[in-house]
Amino acid sequence: MAQQELEIGQTADFTKTVTEADVVLFAGITGDLNPAHVDQVWADASRFGGRIAHGMLSASFISTVLAMKMPGPGTIYLSQNLRFTGPVKIGDTVTARVEVAEVMPKRRVRLLTTVTRHDGTQVIDGEAVVIAP
Amino acid sequence: MAQQELEIGQTADFTKTVTEADVVLFAGITGDLNPAHVDQVWADASRFGGRIAHGMLSASFISTVLAMKMPGPGTIYLSQNLRFTGPVKIGDTVTARVEVAEVMPKRRVRLLTTVTRHDGTQVIDGEAVVIAP
Amino acid sequence: MAQQELEIGQTADFTKTVTEADVVLFAGITGDLNPAHVDQVWADASRFGGRIAHGMLSASFISTVLAMKMPGPGTIYLSQNLRFTGPVKIGDTVTARVEVAEVMPKRRVRLLTTVTRHDGTQVIDGEAVVIAP
Amino acid sequence: MAQQELEIGQTADFTKTVTEADVVLFAGITGDLNPAHVDQVWADASRFGGRIAHGMLSASFISTVLAMKMPGPGTIYLSQNLRFTGPVKIGDTVTARVEVAEVMPKRRVRLLTTVTRHDGTQVIDGEAVVIAP
Repeated sequence: MAQQELEIGQTADFTKTVTEADVVLFAGITGDLNPAHVDQVWADASRFGGRIAHGMLSASFISTVLAMKMPGPGTIYLSQNLRFTGPVKIGDTVTARVEVAEVMPKRRVRLLTTVTRHDGTQVIDGEAVVIAP
Repeated sequence: MAQQELEIGQTADFTKTVTEADVVLFAGITGDLNPAHVDQVWADASRFGGRIAHGMLSASFISTVLAMKMPGPGTIYLSQNLRFTGPVKIGDTVTARVEVAEVMPKRRVRLLTTVTRHDGTQVIDGEAVVIAP
Repeated sequence: MAQQELEIGQTADFTKTVTEADVVLFAGITGDLNPAHVDQVWADASRFGGRIAHGMLSASFISTVLAMKMPGPGTIYLSQNLRFTGPVKIGDTVTARVEVAEVMPKRRVRLLTTVTRHDGTQVIDGEAVVIAP
Repeated sequence: MAQQELEIGQTADFTKTVTEADVVLFAGITGDLNPAHVDQVWADASRFGGRIAHGMLSASFISTVLAMKMPGPGTIYLSQNLRFTGPVKIGDTVTARVEVAEVMPKRRVRLLTTVTRHDGTQVIDGEAVVIAP
């Protein structure tokens, strides 16, 4: 969407189940083989009681909403602030949601960005600034 | 490393060439099929003159340094702020670097985080707060 | 590590859970679609009672320790002998371990190399010769 | 093939081009992110003058021939000795070949195993012992 079609309070979202294959591939692409992600024995004994997904994997679903839905294809990412507030385990279904917070000069848009587990627990909050297409 | 081994100014880094395979897999895992990443014809005509990698892919290499090098395995991510300051094209070699900025109570550590292309151009800057192992 | 930092008896290791995704991807990369790895019906009726990982996948974790930990980045692989002494099932967590056995002229190092399941069963033993960085 | 169908001197082979995607995925599965494989700038300055494939990736094609062709599906791997005699660069086409060297009691078979680049340079030699199906 062009910037003039965006109004404060508009939302868009994307939902995905985080599978073991996602975590294996994400570890491979990034080189982040933290035992919390790739060593089930270590992870079972950790504070999370099992393997968790990379925080940046869940955060990436925010980028997916921005690029695919609102503002949509052609969006340019300027900044993203992230607070990681809970873990995502393999098998969890999460929803990334963005909400227009401010429409600024030069096609800039500020959005509130969250990722939430299916049980309602927020796992990421923060905000993004983008250039609308 | 435990928090008491960390000193302000200490750095660690990770370098990787961002390949087409990385971008294809990242698009598949995240669902972010922005034409800037997956449509070469569209991308060639865009302001970047070619396909670029997802900003969150480059950002994820920061997580790799935190988890694999400093503070290392067992690190828990609390927050990450990101400013995207330049594009990464397919084939670019990038270096993610973290530098200890503050050692805080309760094993918290604040780090300056950057990602830089091999030609010296900074593509991401920002900062992270983690719990050291 | 440079060769002069290595002493007989020094060890390093790497632990990873072998997931179904790992086996599927390894089969795809190598073309080894042995029914023991990709045909659950066949594998359930086999002597192993289920799908097993490729022996060379478990063996590759030895290369990971050599390249990432000891001697570390820049190591050149000269030879590797492998005896496969037990199966690794999908879901098993395995540890590859290397131990310096001999420090030789011309930066050569000989290492004992094993892969062990979490239950303590050795699945690979053998030895490697490398050129230290 | 059953063991009684195997004769000394029989051969089988498998040929594959080693692509960048193969190397990226192999690095991810194994955790071996040696800069020789994933950092083009480092690799260009190394003795090999470019990124090379993991030695164990090329070695795995031997397993492919054993499992898919001779002796074929159901083969059990007992041992594999490997000498790495040359590098494989991304884009090289390699052929893994096995040749029956000895037919032994209890369905054991010993085979000579090589991997050769398309230009004729041998990159791996060694031998395997397997149980025929």
